[in-house]
Amino acid sequence: MDLSHQWTSFLENATEEEQEVAALFLESMKRKKTGENGTHIGALMGVTSKFQEPNILKMTIPNTELLQNSLEILHGGITATLLDSAMGTLAFKLIPEDKAAVTTEMKINYVAKGIGTHFDCVASVIHQGSKLLVMEGKVYRSDHTLIAHATGSFFIIPKKR
Amino acid sequence: MDLSHQWTSFLENATEEEQEVAALFLESMKRKKTGENGTHIGALMGVTSKFQEPNILKMTIPNTELLQNSLEILHGGITATLLDSAMGTLAFKLIPEDKAAVTTEMKINYVAKGIGTHFDCVASVIHQGSKLLVMEGKVYRSDHTLIAHATGSFFIIPKKR
Amino acid sequence: MDLSHQWTSFLENATEEEQEVAALFLESMKRKKTGENGTHIGALMGVTSKFQEPNILKMTIPNTELLQNSLEILHGGITATLLDSAMGTLAFKLIPEDKAAVTTEMKINYVAKGIGTHFDCVASVIHQGSKLLVMEGKVYRSDHTLIAHATGSFFIIPKKR
Amino acid sequence: MDLSHQWTSFLENATEEEQEVAALFLESMKRKKTGENGTHIGALMGVTSKFQEPNILKMTIPNTELLQNSLEILHGGITATLLDSAMGTLAFKLIPEDKAAVTTEMKINYVAKGIGTHFDCVASVIHQGSKLLVMEGKVYRSDHTLIAHATGSFFIIPKKR
Repeated sequence: MDLSHQWTSFLENATEEEQEVAALFLESMKRKKTGENGTHIGALMGVTSKFQEPNILKMTIPNTELLQNSLEILHGGITATLLDSAMGTLAFKLIPEDKAAVTTEMKINYVAKGIGTHFDCVASVIHQGSKLLVMEGKVYRSDHTLIAHATGSFFIIPKKR
Repeated sequence: MDLSHQWTSFLENATEEEQEVAALFLESMKRKKTGENGTHIGALMGVTSKFQEPNILKMTIPNTELLQNSLEILHGGITATLLDSAMGTLAFKLIPEDKAAVTTEMKINYVAKGIGTHFDCVASVIHQGSKLLVMEGKVYRSDHTLIAHATGSFFIIPKKR
Repeated sequence: MDLSHQWTSFLENATEEEQEVAALFLESMKRKKTGENGTHIGALMGVTSKFQEPNILKMTIPNTELLQNSLEILHGGITATLLDSAMGTLAFKLIPEDKAAVTTEMKINYVAKGIGTHFDCVASVIHQGSKLLVMEGKVYRSDHTLIAHATGSFFIIPKKR
Repeated sequence: MDLSHQWTSFLENATEEEQEVAALFLESMKRKKTGENGTHIGALMGVTSKFQEPNILKMTIPNTELLQNSLEILHGGITATLLDSAMGTLAFKLIPEDKAAVTTEMKINYVAKGIGTHFDCVASVIHQGSKLLVMEGKVYRSDHTLIAHATGSFFIIPKKR
């Protein structure tokens, strides 16, 4: 049975929730295909981002059941992914074009439940050195409550061709 | 156009890579449906886990393109998700049944590239108190190289009914 | 030989640097005796602190050879002590009088060399919960360069009588 | 009044506790003078250390009132200093003689009260790269209870001449 038939067969007996998730998967594939998101994870999370002056990046994701733990709260790993992505994206913007930035460490304090309609992550710079960037990231839920705070270190290395 | 037709239509023009990803999505939906995985994220990652004595949990994920960053390396956020899940699952095993454990903080050191066929995360206990658990997690790639080390704190709270 | 004679005997053959250090020790004993500092460590570091609105604490120490590592740079452990003290002092201010705050974890990023005439540590609040406070601390040297950034968690517990 | 007279004058009216502290200060000056300790802080803490195979360092300090907070518990900053010193000393042992190791970040989990007669810190290696070392440190009190756990990153840099 080919893949289309497998999907069709699965969807015939799918619950409403499963159909929603299947729709989220399809949307994420399209976002990846169009280049709207560079990675499958970014596409699954529905990441959008915007640089703000000076040296601030705001990255936003909608809250979907895809991203939740079994208590229907944003999974701490997704919060970490959002923070790493936002701090890393900002790091890349701050370094020369022939360099790359890799996360060497990250620490996250989880301070409130991740609930609501969407999450905003604000990344900023703590220290910019020639070899290392130290970044800060904060995640807010839609009612503006801080849910997580992070600091991370990014090594600046030559970009592979 | 209903969802089945949308999937069929998407898959008609899909690249080989997109078909692979679509197959991964479908498999993850099935793992979630059967209860093999409790969350969509766990299902997308293909998480399996096994307790080892004494008080050790080993959690394994296959390496798929779904989990990679744009450099085809395991996304640091997925590494974080694996660590949080493994330490949290072990935490839940160590506390009374009427209690829950929530991550209050986690710090990760990323020490080598996440490449290879699969990743093993080994979670263990640093300190078990009556209110707080401090856990350690280590992620190894298939050639047994350590790729990440984490410590995390888990609050022990009454379980919601 | 009693303690006074031992000190006198030591100081007779002391280098200029040793005399300076002996003078710093004596000053610290006086600061502890008068209650200017509550602990010997605080007295040795010459800690002074001042609350600033809203919910900000500034703690200052002079740079002395007592506090330096073998490279004549502020010892990372002293930086940590300053950060823990400042964040902890602020935590105590924010909680009810019958409560105490204890550090459960702290993470420090060291970003520049600790040199200059003195160091200012600015502590502020990231999150204030009923059981846990998450604090931020920044240490600046006298030329206003950030040398260290920290986040820390403080448990709120009943005060012992 | 010269320094000897100032010390003599202070000691005439000193409490028993102050005399003990003055004796600790004098001992620490002697340990620094003989080179038993390389820094004043190390001397004040009474640090001794011993390498253990393979790539393990054990650093020990006695518990004295000099090192305690106002609750007569080992000051968290001193715990941090012990951890940074032990991990850093081990780092220096592992790198070529023309290199130095500097702490770039450290995270500590405090898990039990620092009480008892002395404290042992055991430092070991999590990852040894060509540019970065990631170390682990554990502090035990004299009854063998773990009181603190740390991880830290050390940059390997050319040694200044």
